[in-house]
Amino acid sequence: MPRTPAPPRDTTVGIIGGGPAGLLLARLLHRAAVDCVVLESRDRAYVEQRQRAGILEQGTTDVLRACGAGERLDREGLVHEGIELRFDRRSHRLDFPALTDGRRVTVYAQTEVVKDLIALQLAEGPPLLFGARALAVTGADTDRPRVHYAHDGREHTLACAYVVGCDGFHGVARQAIPESARRTFTRRYPYSWLGVLAEVPPSCDELVYAHSDRGFALLSMRTPTVSRLYLQVPNDTDPADWPDERIWDELQARAAVDTVPWKPARGPLTAKAVLPLRSSVTEPMRWGRILLAGDAAHIVPPTGAKGLNLAVADVTVLARALTHRHRTGSAELLDAYSATCLRRVWRAEHFSHFMTTALHTDPEQSPFDTRLQLSQLDRIAGSWHAAAELAENYTGLPLY
Amino acid sequence: MPRTPAPPRDTTVGIIGGGPAGLLLARLLHRAAVDCVVLESRDRAYVEQRQRAGILEQGTTDVLRACGAGERLDREGLVHEGIELRFDRRSHRLDFPALTDGRRVTVYAQTEVVKDLIALQLAEGPPLLFGARALAVTGADTDRPRVHYAHDGREHTLACAYVVGCDGFHGVARQAIPESARRTFTRRYPYSWLGVLAEVPPSCDELVYAHSDRGFALLSMRTPTVSRLYLQVPNDTDPADWPDERIWDELQARAAVDTVPWKPARGPLTAKAVLPLRSSVTEPMRWGRILLAGDAAHIVPPTGAKGLNLAVADVTVLARALTHRHRTGSAELLDAYSATCLRRVWRAEHFSHFMTTALHTDPEQSPFDTRLQLSQLDRIAGSWHAAAELAENYTGLPLY
Repeated sequence: MPRTPAPPRDTTVGIIGGGPAGLLLARLLHRAAVDCVVLESRDRAYVEQRQRAGILEQGTTDVLRACGAGERLDREGLVHEGIELRFDRRSHRLDFPALTDGRRVTVYAQTEVVKDLIALQLAEGPPLLFGARALAVTGADTDRPRVHYAHDGREHTLACAYVVGCDGFHGVARQAIPESARRTFTRRYPYSWLGVLAEVPPSCDELVYAHSDRGFALLSMRTPTVSRLYLQVPNDTDPADWPDERIWDELQARAAVDTVPWKPARGPLTAKAVLPLRSSVTEPMRWGRILLAGDAAHIVPPTGAKGLNLAVADVTVLARALTHRHRTGSAELLDAYSATCLRRVWRAEHFSHFMTTALHTDPEQSPFDTRLQLSQLDRIAGSWHAAAELAENYTGLPLY
Repeated sequence: MPRTPAPPRDTTVGIIGGGPAGLLLARLLHRAAVDCVVLESRDRAYVEQRQRAGILEQGTTDVLRACGAGERLDREGLVHEGIELRFDRRSHRLDFPALTDGRRVTVYAQTEVVKDLIALQLAEGPPLLFGARALAVTGADTDRPRVHYAHDGREHTLACAYVVGCDGFHGVARQAIPESARRTFTRRYPYSWLGVLAEVPPSCDELVYAHSDRGFALLSMRTPTVSRLYLQVPNDTDPADWPDERIWDELQARAAVDTVPWKPARGPLTAKAVLPLRSSVTEPMRWGRILLAGDAAHIVPPTGAKGLNLAVADVTVLARALTHRHRTGSAELLDAYSATCLRRVWRAEHFSHFMTTALHTDPEQSPFDTRLQLSQLDRIAGSWHAAAELAENYTGLPLY
């Protein structure tokens, strides 16, 4: 067990939040010889078991591999070459490599990425402090901003050249940008996801996105022996109202097609939870010497599988900018950080919104709206350009 | 002046409505030697001056040419190889032939198409009766349906093998299908168009679709000397509230870009009118021996320029089916008519809805929604597939 470092007081880049964004940024900076410190409010066990996304764009796996975090990913990750759409009781497969000049995605849970990055960081540095709860950021408009944090029952101060907020929507970093200097764009959806893990091999080789008049369903997986399954449910749903058999019956009904008699293999369910769907973007992603990355700057509904990938894109752009600043003294890339990221962020927001509204049943939608959804899905199944547009967005756009 | 035919009593195909759908169907049937009669409730002058759409898909011009109605179209129609999108104070041109393997559109007003078809029909037949107001269709579920109509103050009956309703959304044909046997899908939009004709050469060579925070604007044209211009306005707008200078100022403000100092050339305005935007589809498009075509079966908002083109597609499919029936006795194509058309209809409904919602400002839309619109337009400007998907739909999909 590596020794917990003493509470640090001084660094070049102070990173608030030890999720995938903060950990990957630290890893990238470490390899570029830029000092940094990661403050994570929770303990290691908690961070390592949070269930989140599980689809990595090709650009994301490229970055993880390049920074030395690709070994287990390459061994255990499941490379997927397409997804299946089910609608109108029929099925259509999208062939990603054919539609995108060879791009693929990898199924590898975010929580596994986090474990890999934590293990690397505890072994090689830079400092990663668990149980370090950021309280405030001050001096963001000076050249020496400070993160005030609590650790082991005491308050400490970390003086930095830059502070990066990887601490989520409710974190202190975002709130340290004066309200007059930031603008948050949000959208709530009139439905949630009931998500479960099932101790049973997935019933389909690839992810299945199912539109049905009973609502949306997503058949996904974590590993070759663990299924990850989602059902659209009303926003106020109590998971207790969904006994296991009801979940399996509903998955079966929503994903049914006429062409093949299909049934999901059933198994014990774990980690039953209701997840709200939300879109949010805060602009700008940089103010003074505070920079926001990942969920601190933006939230997407999970339908497009973009949340983790956006966070990876942010910190990849940011690591390059901070390294450039460190090596040359030029803040040119840092000055461009917000605009560079926001264009991709809004693309992902639009795509996530598109996937969400194309596949879910809004409780207030009219029969006309349903017909439009089916015409759109039919078009994706029948048009090269419509299919390629979806596949390009899904597999991920170039970083710059 | 051709002689008005005596009120006909008997025909193979009774066509209700002498707009472009009914006239073109009559022309196509006439050339295939299938008897038909067209009943039009208005007089010729009225029909020839109704202002409607003006963008013909390549498939539409092909059909008009093939049936002998292409002479003036080829002489006076303006072939367009693209459109311009303006948004976020910048401009992007879509090059249709490059994006669609050579497809183009033609600017030629619907009212000119109608004049050409009327002239042909009065010269060569089949019978076209103006001032013949259809009152009801009876016996649609028999093999001899009848159209009851008023003409010259008397009631008449036209016995047919088939009745085709080209008489619009409020016509008697649609209503002759029992309510229990039909379903109508509708959507209203929270804005209208203020449309004007201007006696001034168009200020742009191609159509300009402008998204702005002041609302949508469309710069179009009828001829090289007549501009056709539209502004998004609230649904309850009185055209009297829009004096000419206000219209020009607003067009200029909405279509402004930063790259070029642009101003519309101003001229006298005529035909100022407020047009509601609406989507509607009636299913099925055939019941017994009644067949619906054009606006009788579906309405699209004008943003996608699909209304006239859908009507032409309907009657082209229908003429082939009726001719097949006449020549072989087989109703196979007639039985497929509704399903064949509805797939294209829903595609056009979806595209028209997409163009409408992508470009207009919903009075209730949030800043998040506006950012999504801009991201989508930015994607169309930057992605081959997104641009090609728009161009393919705009220039028109294959007939079958």
